[in-house]
Amino acid sequence: MSMKRAASSAVRAVASLGNSPVQARTLHASPGSKKIVGVFYNANEYASLNPNFLGCVENSLGIRQWLESQGHQYIVTPDKEGPECELEKHIPDLHVLITTPFHPAYVTAERIKKAKNLQLLLTAGIGSDHIDLKAAADAGLTVAEVTGSNVVSVAEDELMRILILVRNFLPGYHQVINGEWNVAAIAHRAYDLEGKTVGTVGAGRIGRLLLQRLKPFNCNLLYHDRLKIDPELESQIGAKYEEDLDAMLPKCDVIVINTPLTEKTKGLFNKEKIAKLKKGVLIVNNARGAIMDTQAVVDACNSGHIAGYSGDVWYPQPAPKDHPWRYMPNQAMTPHISGTTIDAQLRYSAGVEDMLRRYFKGEDFPAQNYIVKDGELAPQYR
Amino acid sequence: MSMKRAASSAVRAVASLGNSPVQARTLHASPGSKKIVGVFYNANEYASLNPNFLGCVENSLGIRQWLESQGHQYIVTPDKEGPECELEKHIPDLHVLITTPFHPAYVTAERIKKAKNLQLLLTAGIGSDHIDLKAAADAGLTVAEVTGSNVVSVAEDELMRILILVRNFLPGYHQVINGEWNVAAIAHRAYDLEGKTVGTVGAGRIGRLLLQRLKPFNCNLLYHDRLKIDPELESQIGAKYEEDLDAMLPKCDVIVINTPLTEKTKGLFNKEKIAKLKKGVLIVNNARGAIMDTQAVVDACNSGHIAGYSGDVWYPQPAPKDHPWRYMPNQAMTPHISGTTIDAQLRYSAGVEDMLRRYFKGEDFPAQNYIVKDGELAPQYR
Repeated sequence: MSMKRAASSAVRAVASLGNSPVQARTLHASPGSKKIVGVFYNANEYASLNPNFLGCVENSLGIRQWLESQGHQYIVTPDKEGPECELEKHIPDLHVLITTPFHPAYVTAERIKKAKNLQLLLTAGIGSDHIDLKAAADAGLTVAEVTGSNVVSVAEDELMRILILVRNFLPGYHQVINGEWNVAAIAHRAYDLEGKTVGTVGAGRIGRLLLQRLKPFNCNLLYHDRLKIDPELESQIGAKYEEDLDAMLPKCDVIVINTPLTEKTKGLFNKEKIAKLKKGVLIVNNARGAIMDTQAVVDACNSGHIAGYSGDVWYPQPAPKDHPWRYMPNQAMTPHISGTTIDAQLRYSAGVEDMLRRYFKGEDFPAQNYIVKDGELAPQYR
Repeated sequence: MSMKRAASSAVRAVASLGNSPVQARTLHASPGSKKIVGVFYNANEYASLNPNFLGCVENSLGIRQWLESQGHQYIVTPDKEGPECELEKHIPDLHVLITTPFHPAYVTAERIKKAKNLQLLLTAGIGSDHIDLKAAADAGLTVAEVTGSNVVSVAEDELMRILILVRNFLPGYHQVINGEWNVAAIAHRAYDLEGKTVGTVGAGRIGRLLLQRLKPFNCNLLYHDRLKIDPELESQIGAKYEEDLDAMLPKCDVIVINTPLTEKTKGLFNKEKIAKLKKGVLIVNNARGAIMDTQAVVDACNSGHIAGYSGDVWYPQPAPKDHPWRYMPNQAMTPHISGTTIDAQLRYSAGVEDMLRRYFKGEDFPAQNYIVKDGELAPQYR
């Protein structure tokens, strides 16, 4: 595997050989032994309820036995914040750090600087914006994720959220649990999805899977992206390309955010951008919370300009108790969950294991998994 | 329009001509004038919020001006229960009764017997099981609904509910509004729909629309019905026919009920039938509440045999405050709403107006709208 840091680390190992035979012996006795740290959420009482619930501390992606049988050290912790946290203790000597977007360990330039042995940053899932990618590239690290592991999971979830908003599901559910029955209070703003205009901002893997799933709903489908989808797939999906985002936005009854968080998309949906949206627009955002200006979304939900907002991404995460999106009207939010279904966990656990196996053997990863390789960011993060 | 009651009513009119000149003059003065009664829910403060919110008392399907300009009398009321209710007052002399499944006025044999002038029962929407169809047929009435007016609405809603259950949406939403963040508590039982087996009990118009919308989700699709879908459509939908319901049930991760309520389907899902389902099955029922044994569903949700139940239909409706489905675990219920989106209201209001127009002119309705015609029930209600 081609990694600048691997080379410089080898240089350090060789250098230390002269100064410290004990350390060198250790390296020699177990030449391939690596220290791998995984940061996941604690599942506590839920960990044992499902044998396929792999993405938590307790079940550790299901790779502990295999890693340890290969002589590697595998530390897993949920404790990722502040200078005294468990993660911080292992930063100086870990070789591989596995993180997830669902319980993100923020890999800052400072942490990268401290992590002298670090070679590989793996994201169990998709979305590596919790990592300072420029710092990682500059340090010669490899950053990779399990591309494709949960794109179906997220696309399905987006379609669910579109329907929840369009059909005004939650007020009806609230009536049920509150012992009420008032069809009018729901029906006056419940619609069919059929015939509505749905636009996706970003039509990468998730956006395309969403468009494919939307096709039988007989909507007017639009997409904005840097690149037009190739004509055959485009006609199969039945969506129309909108080169100019600002031209697309006012046409849409429903906007779905499917773009990664980058310097360009951070805060993209601010007050000015939201003002361009159709009054009564519905927004689904399973991409990243920071693509939205938090307060601008709250204000537009309060004024009714945004008639419904649903997503599973927040900034920061976990969302604090007083995050205003918890309390704004017509929200259908959840914690960050869409990409971590049991099916997705099985796929990204397998993907992490596959990349570790290749890493130990010095083999390349599947090309689409790289976020940073040879000091270069993948195109979608530039 | 061919209706036994029209004929017998004409006989009565002729007979009364001899006995009561005043009554005859009235008939003569306004030979086409009819008394039409509509039973809808009150929308109160919601009525004015949306000009297309037609299916409520206040907006009266949007046909008042037209009906009155034609010289007809149009009474609209939400008051439909008990001997003193407003509906009961008009039973003896109404010609046409318009009802809906969302706020059903139960048209019993007793009411039909009292309704000496009644000729036509129109359902604004689909589903006429709140009418004693046999009594209506015996009395020579015509019963018709706006077939197709809300099939898309209901099918979309079913797909939403499948996703809400499969992906375990509601526990996440509850965390948000309760100031919590616990991904594990959601993720341990959240799945992708992809790859799961979904079976519909009934593949009429709604069932087929659901199957078409499910196709891009890459599920294993099954359907049970009296009749196999024609081979071309079946291969287009990609669903497999299961002639034997009891053979299909244990295969399904998700069961969707899409059969009308008839003597055969009433209480179909009782304790014994539910026991045949896969442990952890998810059930979506937007058909009719009475197809399920209420307590058997509660017991199976409590035991975990049913892992999620969602639907908008109850027995009776409105569901009383103490209906046990409000309080059972893993429910995602709403009041009866899926077929009464704004789009559906526009369609069934137009359909009712069309049938009234034809009725006044003595023309037949679109064939698929008839539930009872010439003393015969439509096949799906036999």
